[in-house]
Amino acid sequence: MFISETNLNVRYAETDQMGIVHHSNYPIWYEVGRTDFIKKMGMPYSVVEESGIMLPLIELTSSYKGSAKYEDDIIVKTRIKEFSYTRITFYYEIYKKNELNLINSGETKHVWTNRELKPVNIKKNAPHILELINVAFGNVEK
Amino acid sequence: MFISETNLNVRYAETDQMGIVHHSNYPIWYEVGRTDFIKKMGMPYSVVEESGIMLPLIELTSSYKGSAKYEDDIIVKTRIKEFSYTRITFYYEIYKKNELNLINSGETKHVWTNRELKPVNIKKNAPHILELINVAFGNVEK
Amino acid sequence: MFISETNLNVRYAETDQMGIVHHSNYPIWYEVGRTDFIKKMGMPYSVVEESGIMLPLIELTSSYKGSAKYEDDIIVKTRIKEFSYTRITFYYEIYKKNELNLINSGETKHVWTNRELKPVNIKKNAPHILELINVAFGNVEK
Amino acid sequence: MFISETNLNVRYAETDQMGIVHHSNYPIWYEVGRTDFIKKMGMPYSVVEESGIMLPLIELTSSYKGSAKYEDDIIVKTRIKEFSYTRITFYYEIYKKNELNLINSGETKHVWTNRELKPVNIKKNAPHILELINVAFGNVEK
Repeated sequence: MFISETNLNVRYAETDQMGIVHHSNYPIWYEVGRTDFIKKMGMPYSVVEESGIMLPLIELTSSYKGSAKYEDDIIVKTRIKEFSYTRITFYYEIYKKNELNLINSGETKHVWTNRELKPVNIKKNAPHILELINVAFGNVEK
Repeated sequence: MFISETNLNVRYAETDQMGIVHHSNYPIWYEVGRTDFIKKMGMPYSVVEESGIMLPLIELTSSYKGSAKYEDDIIVKTRIKEFSYTRITFYYEIYKKNELNLINSGETKHVWTNRELKPVNIKKNAPHILELINVAFGNVEK
Repeated sequence: MFISETNLNVRYAETDQMGIVHHSNYPIWYEVGRTDFIKKMGMPYSVVEESGIMLPLIELTSSYKGSAKYEDDIIVKTRIKEFSYTRITFYYEIYKKNELNLINSGETKHVWTNRELKPVNIKKNAPHILELINVAFGNVEK
Repeated sequence: MFISETNLNVRYAETDQMGIVHHSNYPIWYEVGRTDFIKKMGMPYSVVEESGIMLPLIELTSSYKGSAKYEDDIIVKTRIKEFSYTRITFYYEIYKKNELNLINSGETKHVWTNRELKPVNIKKNAPHILELINVAFGNVEK
């Protein structure tokens, strides 16, 4: 099972008047982690999209257990939770660097589509992507 | 049961390269709906915060059933799903104006805290807010 | 000279840890004002873009004279400052409702392009848009 | 003269329906560059703010000469353009990694204030910050 680790530094613009990172940034951090995960899987998501395969989000859950502040170093851990030929769910954990406590965890469920946002089956339409997923998930050796 | 309706117009900055509203904007739209709901309940949330009572978010779920485009007129319907003396959950439905199909629904769960983000019991610390919630939820007559 | 007035309410997500609206939101508010201005000119910008004419920004200036807070009612006043067949500059003033003092003013200069972001001359390529601009600028009667 | 270089990777959320980075992100990238510059000067800006000295923005200019896309590697070059005891102006250049052409340049002018956003003179109120600025600007040896 491949788990990517992505480093971020909290931007001033990401804070709100409570003095902490506004909750709407966590889904964006998930996306940053997911971008990094897919790139490290072996095929940047920008290349996937250029090939005509899109991966819009259909379900999001996020659980806020702590908070982060301006200039905090953040680590996003990303892994695949489950997948089929038509869908994939990623799972994320967010930590402050050098701290053990989880500050946020979440999941995003996506559907594979074509450019017109119609669902596609990647076993048929993008078998090379399915293969990379199987490797990242640990189903097959690289 | 009070349900607020809040109107939005999709901003160009809210779109992404898929040509639709980026998913990270929906939690912000929930917040816009929640702000409007609380104001219509009888006490603007900015006044609640100035009184030293905060309402940070601890759980977010969002379900994407459709999409929205630049300049679409959007309606956010907000209601209270459940509450206790220490927590409150809001439920949201997002529609395009003059269309029946739901494009997104979601929930946000919050905890009442003081300025230092320590949990408080609003029955003790802010009974006037509890009363407004009871009215909005339909437990008592206005 | 047509001047549009657009109403906004400050979103919680737009605040930062200084307790005021983060400066990066003002260019987005200009865009909201510009969208409204163009729509009121007689042709929504989403329709302009669908016709294959784009209007990317090439210069931005913003002058911050005051600040705004969560839930403040904001008015964006938008007008055309100058234009040619290839470029257009908008000018914005931002006020808090019922207050005389300007909190921000700014300008955005744009170039007319095709979908590939290559410059076009609207006198040749989109004379109906040039006509709407002339009316909005006060050069010709409606 | 100290010039910092800060690396970014374009986030999907930063793109718009034109398929490029939305212009409102450049001021946020300036801020990321400025945060990094100040930290490398010897005193993180989060520490400056905790000491009661704020640096709100009063003027912004941005010149867009090119564009950036999702997953592009970006370099923000930041330097001090000029300063007095009460104000400071930063200058930024933004490049795509391994490309010579500038895609954006800009300036931000700031005023030193206390927590209540009243102007202060840093020669009197924060001489250690003035000293760091003089070193970064090349006025004095480290």
